[in-house]
Amino acid sequence: MITNTLIAKYPGGEYPLYIGESLIKSSELLRKHIRSKQIMIVSNDRVSEFYLSSIQKAFGDYQCDTVVLPDGEQYKTLEQLNKIWDALAENKHHRDTTLISLGGGVVGDMTGFAAACYHRGVNFIQIPTTLLSQADASIGGKTAIDHPCGKNLIGAFHQPVAVIIDVDTLATLPDREYRAGITEIIKAALIKDKSFFLWLETNIEKLLAKDKPTIIETLQRACQIKCDVVEADEKEHGERALLNLGHTFGHAIEQNLNYGDWLHGEAVALGILMAADLSVEKGWLTTKERTQIRDILTQADMPNRLPSKIKCDTLRATMWSDKKVLDGQLRLVLLKGIGQAIVTTDVTRKELDDVLAKYSI
Amino acid sequence: MITNTLIAKYPGGEYPLYIGESLIKSSELLRKHIRSKQIMIVSNDRVSEFYLSSIQKAFGDYQCDTVVLPDGEQYKTLEQLNKIWDALAENKHHRDTTLISLGGGVVGDMTGFAAACYHRGVNFIQIPTTLLSQADASIGGKTAIDHPCGKNLIGAFHQPVAVIIDVDTLATLPDREYRAGITEIIKAALIKDKSFFLWLETNIEKLLAKDKPTIIETLQRACQIKCDVVEADEKEHGERALLNLGHTFGHAIEQNLNYGDWLHGEAVALGILMAADLSVEKGWLTTKERTQIRDILTQADMPNRLPSKIKCDTLRATMWSDKKVLDGQLRLVLLKGIGQAIVTTDVTRKELDDVLAKYSI
Repeated sequence: MITNTLIAKYPGGEYPLYIGESLIKSSELLRKHIRSKQIMIVSNDRVSEFYLSSIQKAFGDYQCDTVVLPDGEQYKTLEQLNKIWDALAENKHHRDTTLISLGGGVVGDMTGFAAACYHRGVNFIQIPTTLLSQADASIGGKTAIDHPCGKNLIGAFHQPVAVIIDVDTLATLPDREYRAGITEIIKAALIKDKSFFLWLETNIEKLLAKDKPTIIETLQRACQIKCDVVEADEKEHGERALLNLGHTFGHAIEQNLNYGDWLHGEAVALGILMAADLSVEKGWLTTKERTQIRDILTQADMPNRLPSKIKCDTLRATMWSDKKVLDGQLRLVLLKGIGQAIVTTDVTRKELDDVLAKYSI
Repeated sequence: MITNTLIAKYPGGEYPLYIGESLIKSSELLRKHIRSKQIMIVSNDRVSEFYLSSIQKAFGDYQCDTVVLPDGEQYKTLEQLNKIWDALAENKHHRDTTLISLGGGVVGDMTGFAAACYHRGVNFIQIPTTLLSQADASIGGKTAIDHPCGKNLIGAFHQPVAVIIDVDTLATLPDREYRAGITEIIKAALIKDKSFFLWLETNIEKLLAKDKPTIIETLQRACQIKCDVVEADEKEHGERALLNLGHTFGHAIEQNLNYGDWLHGEAVALGILMAADLSVEKGWLTTKERTQIRDILTQADMPNRLPSKIKCDTLRATMWSDKKVLDGQLRLVLLKGIGQAIVTTDVTRKELDDVLAKYSI
């Protein structure tokens, strides 16, 4: 077992992030943050076949219950969430129980939200198994389900007691998902850390080739950025909103595709391109920097055009109903150079229309 | 408009409690804590016919949406809760919206929980219209829905931005509910404030006769106790558990009646009698004090026997699955004299059996 540990801090406390290899084979690590003799593992039907038994093995002498959800963003629903609550209630889990999420962002978000509300809040541990959730979603305590009217519309802030990032679990991740996960890592660099962005430019080939030491260093740097942002602003009153770079566009695209066809990271990647264009339009970003951003996303094989089935007008309407709209004003995250993101309401309808139209061609 | 204002404090902030007459006729007061031009009023089909239009009148120039839920604890469900989320999402409420609950504890709990999770937390205002919710449930930020396996099993801590207690709304409250509400007031006195208990003994007739100045003074004293307890311990790690005096029994009774037949306050009243008996058994409460407690509850016409349809064994099993059970130990709130409650695990199965049996006769 090789681990590196980061500490994520928030106003009410802190928790460790373990990043390394062979972590889910360590009973000691898995049991370290459990405070009673009850646990509930929540996973999905793709990941569970590979890693569930390894986790269960560590808890042979516990009441260890399991909920396996169907895999996919389309199942991030109230109905599926309620399966977790039913299982907890029917198996008489007490308020000192611990939930363990084993899977990607969908499983993590749902498990975290289930934990946030069961008995008005019980402990949970994140074991993210996708690059996206390892680098981003598993940290920071944002939990949610989707609503037919919008992504992550119903949720809670609820911090995990530990995040266990075992890079070995990436072995079974489909290549397309792996590449889409790189988007959120690039995003983290873009908003806060120019030197990390330059490092990524140099190391992107090794990262794409799944070189393990490169993955671990990448995750450490990306997770540290996420921890820093969340520490400064747990509940997204300010700085945390920067993490939404590319997301207002991305969410609108995903919603218009009914969360199908494109992966989250792919939609966000195109959103980052749009945000970069608007930033150039404002005179905040050089065209050279935009090219750097486009190049690295292209290397990760991210899309650079809207899907033909999405109409510009529909997309615009969706964006205005996004939850980042405050009292009628559209708030976007743009770039004042690589490594420096800002939140702005300083985007006109025309500018927005133009950038959407550009990517519809 | 006559008001008295208390301030409820919690670690993250504070909010005012307005207690008085004609409050819901004051547009100024109603609008004072709204921060955008959107509001959502949530009420039930019994209360809404009396008071909804008065509230709506204050918001003529706002986007003022309304959800009317069926009245009753049996509707404190995920399905009904989701109606509120649907209405918020479909009417495009943003994260600066404000929910207003107009009704008793069920409406307050559901509105608060809906607000806790919509966009991961939006503002809400409590306008409680039952004595129970005015004296107790509307303060302190405990929100929840019931689960078939247990009451308030799924919920959140989410504090309101204001509580508006208009005693005029008690005019339409059924007499039986009014009397049941007195139980929680007696409970508040029992756990923390002997002088208030003695005052209640003197004033119970006037309170039962709905004398308005007596109601207002009663609510001020009861709400102050609730505020003090919540301030000391928002998330129920310690002192707040004292508010559960009579509730472990009460919840078990309610659950065995499928939340029908008996009102919450009636079930809690019998629970208080059981707790008083166990306290006498422990030598912590005198028989004279037990008599005082029994007398005042009897004056409020509270039940002093279990319903015949409840079997002792079933009740005991229910109590052991109560969420106040920590790692297999049953935790009960008992009295070390009037005005001094404590949490104890020092109750044997035999003692518990005996007290349940006593009230089954």
